[in-house]
Amino acid sequence: MTMPEAFSDRLDAAVRRCGNPVLVGLDPRAGSLPSGLLADGENASLEQQAEAFRTFCCGVIDVVAGLVPAVKPQMAFFEQLGPRGAAVLKDVVDHASAKGLLVILDGKRNDIGSTALGYARGLLGAGRLSSWGGDALTVSPYLGDDSLEPFVDVAKERAAGIFVLVKTSNPGGGDFQDLTAEGKPIYRHVAEHVERMAAATVSDSGYGCVGAVVGATYPQQLSELRAAMPHAWILVPGFGAQGGTAADVAGACDEQGTGAVANNSRWIIFADAREPYAEQFGDARWQDAVEAATRDMIDRLRGETPAGKLGKV
Amino acid sequence: MTMPEAFSDRLDAAVRRCGNPVLVGLDPRAGSLPSGLLADGENASLEQQAEAFRTFCCGVIDVVAGLVPAVKPQMAFFEQLGPRGAAVLKDVVDHASAKGLLVILDGKRNDIGSTALGYARGLLGAGRLSSWGGDALTVSPYLGDDSLEPFVDVAKERAAGIFVLVKTSNPGGGDFQDLTAEGKPIYRHVAEHVERMAAATVSDSGYGCVGAVVGATYPQQLSELRAAMPHAWILVPGFGAQGGTAADVAGACDEQGTGAVANNSRWIIFADAREPYAEQFGDARWQDAVEAATRDMIDRLRGETPAGKLGKV
Repeated sequence: MTMPEAFSDRLDAAVRRCGNPVLVGLDPRAGSLPSGLLADGENASLEQQAEAFRTFCCGVIDVVAGLVPAVKPQMAFFEQLGPRGAAVLKDVVDHASAKGLLVILDGKRNDIGSTALGYARGLLGAGRLSSWGGDALTVSPYLGDDSLEPFVDVAKERAAGIFVLVKTSNPGGGDFQDLTAEGKPIYRHVAEHVERMAAATVSDSGYGCVGAVVGATYPQQLSELRAAMPHAWILVPGFGAQGGTAADVAGACDEQGTGAVANNSRWIIFADAREPYAEQFGDARWQDAVEAATRDMIDRLRGETPAGKLGKV
Repeated sequence: MTMPEAFSDRLDAAVRRCGNPVLVGLDPRAGSLPSGLLADGENASLEQQAEAFRTFCCGVIDVVAGLVPAVKPQMAFFEQLGPRGAAVLKDVVDHASAKGLLVILDGKRNDIGSTALGYARGLLGAGRLSSWGGDALTVSPYLGDDSLEPFVDVAKERAAGIFVLVKTSNPGGGDFQDLTAEGKPIYRHVAEHVERMAAATVSDSGYGCVGAVVGATYPQQLSELRAAMPHAWILVPGFGAQGGTAADVAGACDEQGTGAVANNSRWIIFADAREPYAEQFGDARWQDAVEAATRDMIDRLRGETPAGKLGKV
C-alpha cells in the first residue's frame, strides 16, 4: 500500500484547500441527538444508541466534508457504549476518511513505553495502516518522555501525527499544569518536550509529526506556546460551548494562517438546539443547522484570525 | 439489581480471603503467546489474534481465580486489534467476574469533566452496571481535579473504584512527575488530591474509592506515599519484568498486610517462556507455568511484605 505524505503536510494542505482551520468534534451524546434519530435519548438501549451515533456522526461528516479539513471523534462517547460503540467508531472513522477528511482520534491515550506501542500501532495510521485508521491521536504526557517516544516512532513510520496535552481547556486544567517548577509552569516543560520532538520530525510544511493541545480558554498561553513551539501544530479545543472566541484562537495560528486547528464539538453538531439555528431549522433539519453553524465558525475564524489570509472557500 | 459493597471493602475482603495482594495483569501480546494458541504471532490475522487473546486471557483467569484477588486487563492490547479486540475485552472482563475475580481495567483514561463522565459511565460498575463491567479503572491526572470528579461520582454511585496515576513505574516517569513545585514534587501534589478524595469516600475497610498507582521501581516513594495517602489503596506495577522486587513492594502495604495490590503481567502470564518454568513446563503446559509463577509471586510477597500477616492461602 502507498504511504501517504507526512501528516503535518497533509493537514497543512487540507487547511489551505478549505481556507480555514476548523476541526469538527464528533462527540455524540445520547441525550443531545436530534429526536428523530433517538427519541428515547439516554433511556434507549445500547443498540439503539450505537445505531443513532452512527447515523448522526456520518450525517455530520456528510455535511462538513469539503468545508473543513478534519474531524475529531471523541473516543469516550463511543467507548461508553461498550464493544458496540467500538464498531460504530470504526465505521465513523472509515466514513470520514472516505469523504476526504483527516481524522484526529481524541483518546488522550498513554501508558508506559512497551504498552504505549500497543496504542500507537492500533490507532495511528490512515486506512489499513492501523486497526482504527486514525491520521492522528491525542496523547497524555504525565508518564514522561519514554511514554511518548513509541507514538512518535509509529507516527513517523506511518505518516501519522500526535497531539500532546500541554494546556487543557477545562477550568481545573491549571491544578497541575500551572504549578511552577524550575522557574516555569509544568505546561512549559511539556511544551519543550513537544517542540523538541516536533523539530526532530519536520517535513515540507515546516511542522513536525508532534503537535500540542492548548485550550482556547487560555488565550495568553496560546500565544506564548505558539512562540515556544514553532514546529508544532496546535490543536485548540474550547471554542464555542466552553467559552473560547475566534479572537482567543488567533494567537495559535502562524503568520500564514496555518499551524493551528480550532475544534468545536457541541456548538456545531448540536446547533439545531441553540439559537439562531433552533428557530431557523429546528430538530428535523439538524443537518442544515450543522452546516450553518460550521459556516459561521469558518467566517468568525477567517474574520478574526490569520486564517483570513488563506485562500477563500 | 443489587448494588455490591463498596469497591475498597470488596478489594480488602478479596485480599484477606486469598491471603495475598497479587494482581495479575492481562497483557496479551501476539508475539508472546504460547505457540499452540497463535502459531503465526504478530503475522496472524486480526481475527486470529483476537480469538487467541480470548482463549489465552480466559485460560489465565481459569488458573488464577481463587488464588489471587484481582486481574488487570491492559486495554491497550485489546484496543490494538480494533473493534474485534473490544469484543474480546468485554468477554474477558465477564469471564473474570464470573470466576469471582475483581477486575481493574487499566486504561489510564481521562478527559475534561463532561467527557470524563462518558468514560466513567461506560467503564465503571461491575456486571450490568456499566457497558464494560469494570470494578475499577486507572485514571490519568494531568487534566486536574475537575477531570477526576466525574470518575469519583460514578465510582461512589456504582460501588466502583479508580486508581489515579501518581508515580509511574517507567524510567521516564520522573520527567514531569518529579519536577518540584512549591517545595514538593508534582507526584506529591497529585497524591494530596488523591488522599483528599479517598478520605472523603472511606468505607468500612478504612479506604476510599480513590486509590493511586505507584511503581515498585521507586520503593522509597512507595513508603513516602503510603504515609501521605493513608486512605488510598495503592496499585503497584513494576514487579518482576520491570525490575521491582517483593521487598520493594513492602512499603506500599499497611500494617495489616492490606491496602496495596502488586501487579505482575509478563512475568506471570508468559512464565512458560522463562526459567525455571520454560524447562519445567514448556510452551505446551503454559497454564501450569502461569500457576507456578503466580504461586511463586504469592510466596515472595507473603515472605517479604506485611502480606505475610494475612490468613494463609
